[in-house]
Amino acid sequence: MIQFEHRPGILDLSWGHPRPDLLPVREWAAASAGLDWRALTYGAAAGPTPLLESLGDPDRTFVTGGASHGLALLTELLSAPGDVILVDSPTYHLAFPILATGGRTLRHIPPSGLAGFVRDLRRGGRRVPLLYLVPTFGNPTGRSLPFEDRRALIEVARAEGVTIVEDDTYRELTYDGPAPPSLWEMAGGAPVVRLGSFAKTVAPGLRLGWINAQPDVVRGLTTLGYVHSGGGVNHTAAVTMAVFRAGGGYRRHVDRVRDVYRTQRDALVTALREGFAGVESPAGGWFVWLPLPAGLTGSGLLPAAEQRGVSFVPGHRFWADGSAGASRIRLSFSHLPADDLRRAAERLTETVARRP
Amino acid sequence: MIQFEHRPGILDLSWGHPRPDLLPVREWAAASAGLDWRALTYGAAAGPTPLLESLGDPDRTFVTGGASHGLALLTELLSAPGDVILVDSPTYHLAFPILATGGRTLRHIPPSGLAGFVRDLRRGGRRVPLLYLVPTFGNPTGRSLPFEDRRALIEVARAEGVTIVEDDTYRELTYDGPAPPSLWEMAGGAPVVRLGSFAKTVAPGLRLGWINAQPDVVRGLTTLGYVHSGGGVNHTAAVTMAVFRAGGGYRRHVDRVRDVYRTQRDALVTALREGFAGVESPAGGWFVWLPLPAGLTGSGLLPAAEQRGVSFVPGHRFWADGSAGASRIRLSFSHLPADDLRRAAERLTETVARRP
Repeated sequence: MIQFEHRPGILDLSWGHPRPDLLPVREWAAASAGLDWRALTYGAAAGPTPLLESLGDPDRTFVTGGASHGLALLTELLSAPGDVILVDSPTYHLAFPILATGGRTLRHIPPSGLAGFVRDLRRGGRRVPLLYLVPTFGNPTGRSLPFEDRRALIEVARAEGVTIVEDDTYRELTYDGPAPPSLWEMAGGAPVVRLGSFAKTVAPGLRLGWINAQPDVVRGLTTLGYVHSGGGVNHTAAVTMAVFRAGGGYRRHVDRVRDVYRTQRDALVTALREGFAGVESPAGGWFVWLPLPAGLTGSGLLPAAEQRGVSFVPGHRFWADGSAGASRIRLSFSHLPADDLRRAAERLTETVARRP
Repeated sequence: MIQFEHRPGILDLSWGHPRPDLLPVREWAAASAGLDWRALTYGAAAGPTPLLESLGDPDRTFVTGGASHGLALLTELLSAPGDVILVDSPTYHLAFPILATGGRTLRHIPPSGLAGFVRDLRRGGRRVPLLYLVPTFGNPTGRSLPFEDRRALIEVARAEGVTIVEDDTYRELTYDGPAPPSLWEMAGGAPVVRLGSFAKTVAPGLRLGWINAQPDVVRGLTTLGYVHSGGGVNHTAAVTMAVFRAGGGYRRHVDRVRDVYRTQRDALVTALREGFAGVESPAGGWFVWLPLPAGLTGSGLLPAAEQRGVSFVPGHRFWADGSAGASRIRLSFSHLPADDLRRAAERLTETVARRP
């Protein structure tokens, strides 16, 4: 019934899933009780006005069936088979097959010399329309792109005619103060398109998110064949979310889960520091990006860790070509309560200590 | 907020939309009250087990975000840019841009000689993977493909290696007895994939439907990039639908709307027969496919009709290349109550009577 697969005896920190008892079951039912017929008929293609307005910029917003769906729509609209798409390294690994649809090629953003890299690709006959990253509380690192680097990236993208796809799904889960400004906000729109989501803040099963983009991109999305046919891509959920937000439930819920996830982050980070060096405390999001002691790799460690009852995602998966990240692992602190996270950190420490 | 645009003074029979007061607002809220946390987290990729089981064939079912979304997914999975896709004539016009995505070419299914037609295309170097039609209570005709023609179509498709995409979204809305067997059922699966929908029977805003297909096609759908990332494509709505069905609400609701739509069909057909010859009464679905008196065309008639306060869709739009159908119009009897439908038929009769 659900995507998560429980493996008995294993504290599984590989899943970026919300904690089940934080899901707003009663609140969602209450919001559903506030609907009228307009929530159940074919919806407006870009999304229902009440939700668009509550998101702040109705002319530059398109409601999606979640961030992954938004990424699929933008890939279809803004790129073509054979194009090169630039991706951050490391970044969200399940974005790779979405972006690589239909024979598109993924290439890492170089650590420096982006403009020259794009020009070289183009001189070689390739189109380079898109660049994808999670600049705020990134997956898997939990880090955010520094302000000056944001500014530089926007400038290069603008100069070279590359659209930045800003996956901004963790923004609301900030634990140590305000989140950095989005690229979308800093650029005043183009050359950025931004993916927002209710999966982390409310509930992933809703499949509800949004895209911020210039009006011509929003128009393009509304004229995609299946959007034109079916109307708004997740209309009833979108109207229900508008009710949830108008009643103040959304804000209260996000405040609550932010506090809980902060506690879980602290529990995991503190426990990891007992056994590991160089443990960063992410200022937001769901992940700790743990460096392993010299000589260890994530994939090498995984079987022993699972035998000891703890699991994670090896770091190399977050590089499109798997070429780096071997000495890191991603640990999610979203899915399990603090006590389990402490125990998981202990098991991980023991696994590393007993290595052959 | 909604897709429908009300134009004051016009009885608009162009929209294949449900009647607003038939939408199960209270019943949906009640089903939403029966959810637990598993409805709100990431769902299984093919859909939640309770809904798959209630649809009858869990291993050969994939839950979609509506029939149009299902068609987009099948097009992506089972065909490639440059392919030829065969479409019925006339058929659902908003399917054309979905099928024509990414440079696919649409060609009409020939009235006879399908096998030779496919072979000729292939000898010319084209791939011909898919054939699309609405064989039961079709849009726009309301007609169903005769039993013998179904059998012949399946045989040719099987022999030639063409997958039939059976858009079966009107099946439940049968007014004069049982609906014909689906192609999917007749073929025992391959070479058919079938699109089902809750848009006409329950509510289109839910964006909820399903695909019946062989297990390898279902597996292919679950491994599409964005499905793998986000899990079930409309999980919460799917679980809510399972609750609605388990409680008997679905069956009661479909029985009720079937009766109402039958009454509306009868009102429109009876009133049209006062002014027109050759009015067929569709045995199911939402549409009357009206032949115009000799010399008239749907697009020629439309401005005068709208001035008189009635609207419709000109018939040529239901041919992929617009090459026929000029002397027919499609009238939907789903959206307006019987009195309005009678008045609309009168206005149409007057428009035709007063033509220059």
